[in-house]
Amino acid sequence: MASHFQLLAKDTETGARRGRLSTLHGAVETPVFIPVGTQGTVKAVTPDHLRAIGAQVILGNTYHLNLRPGSELIRDLGGLHRFMGWDGPILTDSGGFQVFSLAKLREVRADGIAFQSHLDGAKLFLGPKEVMAIQANLGSDIAMVLDECPPWPVDRDACALACERSLRWARECREIALESGYLSTDHHVFAIAQGSTYDDMRREAAQALAALDFPGYAIGGVSVGEPQEEMFRQVAATAPFLPADRPRYTMGLGTPPQLLGMIALGIDMFDCVLPTRVARNGLAFTPDGPINLRNERFRADPGPIVEGLDNYTCRNFSRAYLRHLFTAGEMLGGTLLTIHNLHFFLDLMAQARAHIEAGDYGAWHRAWANRYEQGA
Amino acid sequence: MASHFQLLAKDTETGARRGRLSTLHGAVETPVFIPVGTQGTVKAVTPDHLRAIGAQVILGNTYHLNLRPGSELIRDLGGLHRFMGWDGPILTDSGGFQVFSLAKLREVRADGIAFQSHLDGAKLFLGPKEVMAIQANLGSDIAMVLDECPPWPVDRDACALACERSLRWARECREIALESGYLSTDHHVFAIAQGSTYDDMRREAAQALAALDFPGYAIGGVSVGEPQEEMFRQVAATAPFLPADRPRYTMGLGTPPQLLGMIALGIDMFDCVLPTRVARNGLAFTPDGPINLRNERFRADPGPIVEGLDNYTCRNFSRAYLRHLFTAGEMLGGTLLTIHNLHFFLDLMAQARAHIEAGDYGAWHRAWANRYEQGA
Repeated sequence: MASHFQLLAKDTETGARRGRLSTLHGAVETPVFIPVGTQGTVKAVTPDHLRAIGAQVILGNTYHLNLRPGSELIRDLGGLHRFMGWDGPILTDSGGFQVFSLAKLREVRADGIAFQSHLDGAKLFLGPKEVMAIQANLGSDIAMVLDECPPWPVDRDACALACERSLRWARECREIALESGYLSTDHHVFAIAQGSTYDDMRREAAQALAALDFPGYAIGGVSVGEPQEEMFRQVAATAPFLPADRPRYTMGLGTPPQLLGMIALGIDMFDCVLPTRVARNGLAFTPDGPINLRNERFRADPGPIVEGLDNYTCRNFSRAYLRHLFTAGEMLGGTLLTIHNLHFFLDLMAQARAHIEAGDYGAWHRAWANRYEQGA
Repeated sequence: MASHFQLLAKDTETGARRGRLSTLHGAVETPVFIPVGTQGTVKAVTPDHLRAIGAQVILGNTYHLNLRPGSELIRDLGGLHRFMGWDGPILTDSGGFQVFSLAKLREVRADGIAFQSHLDGAKLFLGPKEVMAIQANLGSDIAMVLDECPPWPVDRDACALACERSLRWARECREIALESGYLSTDHHVFAIAQGSTYDDMRREAAQALAALDFPGYAIGGVSVGEPQEEMFRQVAATAPFLPADRPRYTMGLGTPPQLLGMIALGIDMFDCVLPTRVARNGLAFTPDGPINLRNERFRADPGPIVEGLDNYTCRNFSRAYLRHLFTAGEMLGGTLLTIHNLHFFLDLMAQARAHIEAGDYGAWHRAWANRYEQGA
């Protein structure tokens, strides 16, 4: 399969890569951070503000959108792009992970996962056919295969079973996407390599999936409760066995230093609810670590959250004003801080891309993480 | 005092007027609707969206801002415009009305109102000196005098006492604003004529305040529980005794047909929480009356709230999407609907201005109200 991913530069010291993924809705410059729009909206922000802060691609959650309002309704209304007013690329997960974290009475079977909706208890089933049909209904630019994400820790036998199922489901998802014409019309389907803490299983999963020639690859089963050191070890044990000319994606990550560390291991794509979720509680990201804007010390602070950061919030509003909004319980606080936090993550990726191109990613990464962790 | 209000056109059939009020932060075309920004934010919307829908002037609440975050803090941070990122004109109320509706243990005295904060029970006092100092701290372009708004119904004696106090406080507020230089630096102070249902008291209040030569006049004590017919009667009984060359303002009004009816009586300015408050519950204004977007019948409706209405929400989002946002409890629903509802009110005023200029306000008003009320 022709690659839609172009490797533009490689760092000399680290594994960091600078790339470009072409999609039906435009090119994505990598490394990239993907804002999460679970229920058809990146919470608290309008799409024009998302555009203005440089969001390139956003994520929709198959599990949620399929339960409410339903993927067929979204298809009938012209697809998820039109439904939510976002004309850039959209990546969707398969829904499998959220069945594990949200649904009731789930049962993993050889052919998929049976579960009950967390909203109304309705009995539902997600197999390879279902997740590919839902993601096609949504019109996802980048669809994910169904996989089984083992918990941490997990014993070898259970991990082996999850890997075996995940490989079979990945193959089936790919065949369905080929047969339906989904893959041949420039939609992408990404595989997910599992294997938990077992390096041999991680290597085998990566190699088997690489042989299937997917447009992109996620490293799954990380950030599920394991120590940070172990998470990095697992990614380092998987990435080398994925094809160099395809984008690599760690799902659901992470803190700013984690993202920079993952980039150094050759990861190109990230998504995380962290910047948006904490924004609604008043937590703001800065180069010196996060700060809580509800704090009394910001009561009369006339400065922006981050001096010189070019986003709507930092250009127009003081820390004192934001503190007031949170203290008074005003929705606008969450909106303005979501804009800032997302821009902070997006700008961090833009800086990373520039430093990979400049060839000094390693030194910059260490200095950046050092300042951030000293402040925090 | 030189008038900052220019009468540009008068309707021939009705009392409708087309005017322009100049302020330190720009001209205000009247009739005008003023979005309410109680706590230093028009709830749920960013100032750039407010600008984009044609908001000319917004309202800040003295009572709320003085309690939290405090008017001195706002002054020290450069005033309310800078604090909330709004560079257009700002009108502030005196705080008196909200003491009556929100505060605990209030006591009206000859020199002002003693009360306890509804937030923390702190004992506070608002007299003419205090309300003018607070509004000067905020940097209000249009400040309101302190008044006593009698409830409905009220007996003659109590109404007479409220009128007497309101007149004395208005005189004191004006003197304070003159002495402090507030009025001579192009800030405006508007008087408020009370009188409840007593036509003679309304006439006397209007005439006495007119003699004091204020830059503008509000008709107070309306929309406090009386029947709509009675409300219109009171406004009709007051407006003719206010100077024709100064703007007239009914505070806290109203539904779209009420605004059009008030314009026909010669009223120029309105503010109301109605469009923003109901937006957060899913109620949308249309030319055929309000609709509740939570309703099942909008589940698959691909159309905008109002076809052809040129605002961000109607240009980009379907009724089905908005229903989904409200059903899923997403903040963005309130934001998008606030944008639409405010634009609906602002656009209605723009249409009214055009029809006054065209000389067919009466016919247009009747047709518009007829369609709206048939739909509702």
